[in-house]
Amino acid sequence: MTDLSATTHADALAGLDTPAVVIDAAKVEANLRRAQAYADRHGLRLRPHIKTHKMPHLALRQVELGAAGITCQKLGEAEVMADAGLADIFLPYNIVGAAKLARLAALKRRIAISVTADNAVVVEGYAAAFADADAPLTVLVECDTGMGRCGVTTPEAALALARTIAAAPGLRFGGLMTFPATHRAVEARDFLERSIARLAAAGLPPAVVSSGGTPDLYAAGDDAGLVTEYRPGTYVFSDRFQVAKGVGGYDDCALGVLATVVSRPTDSRAVIDAGSKALTSDLLGLDGYGYLPAYPEARIASLSEEHGVIDFSASPRRPAIGERLFVIPNHVCPVVNLFDTVHFLHAGGSIEERRVAARGRVG
Amino acid sequence: MTDLSATTHADALAGLDTPAVVIDAAKVEANLRRAQAYADRHGLRLRPHIKTHKMPHLALRQVELGAAGITCQKLGEAEVMADAGLADIFLPYNIVGAAKLARLAALKRRIAISVTADNAVVVEGYAAAFADADAPLTVLVECDTGMGRCGVTTPEAALALARTIAAAPGLRFGGLMTFPATHRAVEARDFLERSIARLAAAGLPPAVVSSGGTPDLYAAGDDAGLVTEYRPGTYVFSDRFQVAKGVGGYDDCALGVLATVVSRPTDSRAVIDAGSKALTSDLLGLDGYGYLPAYPEARIASLSEEHGVIDFSASPRRPAIGERLFVIPNHVCPVVNLFDTVHFLHAGGSIEERRVAARGRVG
Repeated sequence: MTDLSATTHADALAGLDTPAVVIDAAKVEANLRRAQAYADRHGLRLRPHIKTHKMPHLALRQVELGAAGITCQKLGEAEVMADAGLADIFLPYNIVGAAKLARLAALKRRIAISVTADNAVVVEGYAAAFADADAPLTVLVECDTGMGRCGVTTPEAALALARTIAAAPGLRFGGLMTFPATHRAVEARDFLERSIARLAAAGLPPAVVSSGGTPDLYAAGDDAGLVTEYRPGTYVFSDRFQVAKGVGGYDDCALGVLATVVSRPTDSRAVIDAGSKALTSDLLGLDGYGYLPAYPEARIASLSEEHGVIDFSASPRRPAIGERLFVIPNHVCPVVNLFDTVHFLHAGGSIEERRVAARGRVG
Repeated sequence: MTDLSATTHADALAGLDTPAVVIDAAKVEANLRRAQAYADRHGLRLRPHIKTHKMPHLALRQVELGAAGITCQKLGEAEVMADAGLADIFLPYNIVGAAKLARLAALKRRIAISVTADNAVVVEGYAAAFADADAPLTVLVECDTGMGRCGVTTPEAALALARTIAAAPGLRFGGLMTFPATHRAVEARDFLERSIARLAAAGLPPAVVSSGGTPDLYAAGDDAGLVTEYRPGTYVFSDRFQVAKGVGGYDDCALGVLATVVSRPTDSRAVIDAGSKALTSDLLGLDGYGYLPAYPEARIASLSEEHGVIDFSASPRRPAIGERLFVIPNHVCPVVNLFDTVHFLHAGGSIEERRVAARGRVG
């Protein structure tokens, strides 16, 4: 993002009103290629999570570069992606309720789609919905290897649920899923190893063991052999959190929120027209609400809905009213979700507006 | 919200997929009427802030009930409201840049619109854009009476900027604006009193002194005489933060996010299908990410983008997988901003879907 500055591309950016999401197309391409090359080198299938970008053309490009398919976090995203021609989608979520099961069944008639379960009630729902389907629904068992969100909590429970799936009419046991990646924690690896051993002994070897998360993407090779596929999302754009985690630097950040300085109430304070409705309140443990490449010492101290208050006390330079700044967000995924359209900046300086087609979907 | 439960209106709500925003229309009406009656009783003009609901039919209702006009936080909101017939809009923001000034000029040809400034650069922009306009643009001076966001920081600066506005061709000095309300802080009242005295002595008595914020709405009468108009936003729906501030109780909360329990990984943990892309990460100093009327002891401990993790350790009752729950969000304004449509539940049990017409606007 350091070369995606208001001065470098002033002509192209001048036509954009603020706040606006600007994406460096060349950096996106580099980020996608680097991850695919890494996955290929380590024998991992890459299944990018599209919740970050929510744009079909990027999902298609991810597959074109070698991804085994994509990951979506909800049916609404999968429906948009299926409409755009994505033919292999993993939906790592417990799909609950008649309306959603009907939508899942409709999707399954069009594309290859697999889901997860972490309990028998959800499996019963799948079985009832797919008992009479032409082909079985593939269901993976979600394992809680340390996150404390969804997931079975013991290898014994993983085996029991796999058996329930395998025994259900209309369902096929597809393997194991976890998040985040396991390579940092001995207990997490141990959970997966013991689960796999039990499943194999029971005649249910998992065809897929799926892990994910951009922070651990470039260490996922350590888990090859244990894990068969990896689901990174944020790597497409990167963000301040990923840089803090050591996943590349700010030069790898492909997305910035372009904002205008609208007020300089004191010598050290500036206010921009990007607040929590552009940057979100996500802190992810960081200090401040984003990073300003043009003013690395500045701190985005607080956000109102349409104001970002920046403390320039530690910055030797300070912006003028009217100056336009890029903000690298803390967490890029919910930022993209706030915008109906985003702007791709291409190498020649041209700007291409794209709709965030899969945002705003219900469930 | 306590009577807006999945069991009370099961038939009407059964057709809604989750997550969904459900709004009790009768509570909205009661909230609007109570605030208008309070303002009338205290001789304050009410100018509701529509950033909370972003829906023209509610803005029209607010005016129908007696509001002097509405407040918008950005041009995109004002454009949608003007299209819907709102004819008097206050935009308390520094409007900066040629594109936005052209949009402001276009709005001003259609409706009565006033804006703010807190510095001379912004006033210069207004003057250049409106020097040749048929009628002057009304500009109020934003005062920082303690928030530390925008605003002139001394009464002397308020007077100086008012003089600059009054002297500029095409502009009219309209008065003073501040946020939040001043009645709690002696220093804030003092700032306004001294500013008003200076302005009056200089022959520029402020026609409008505008204050705002739902937390102080029902104490705004204490400022009558000093303040002439009040801009509450959140009062239309209320939320967990307002209840924490003592502005009514949960019974006054008109908006809930309907979610489904998708997982019960442990005895005390449940996971719902509403995460930060439905509830936002806004904490506003509260513990947890929302309130569950049906399970008051439960705590929404963490959010992923599409998961809400709830700790039921302190709750004697726990929900089953598939159960639908209402969540009263911490901060309702950015929640509405995440949804393309919301659902009004009417007294007879009918559901009406409405578009959040002013969401997703640029600047």
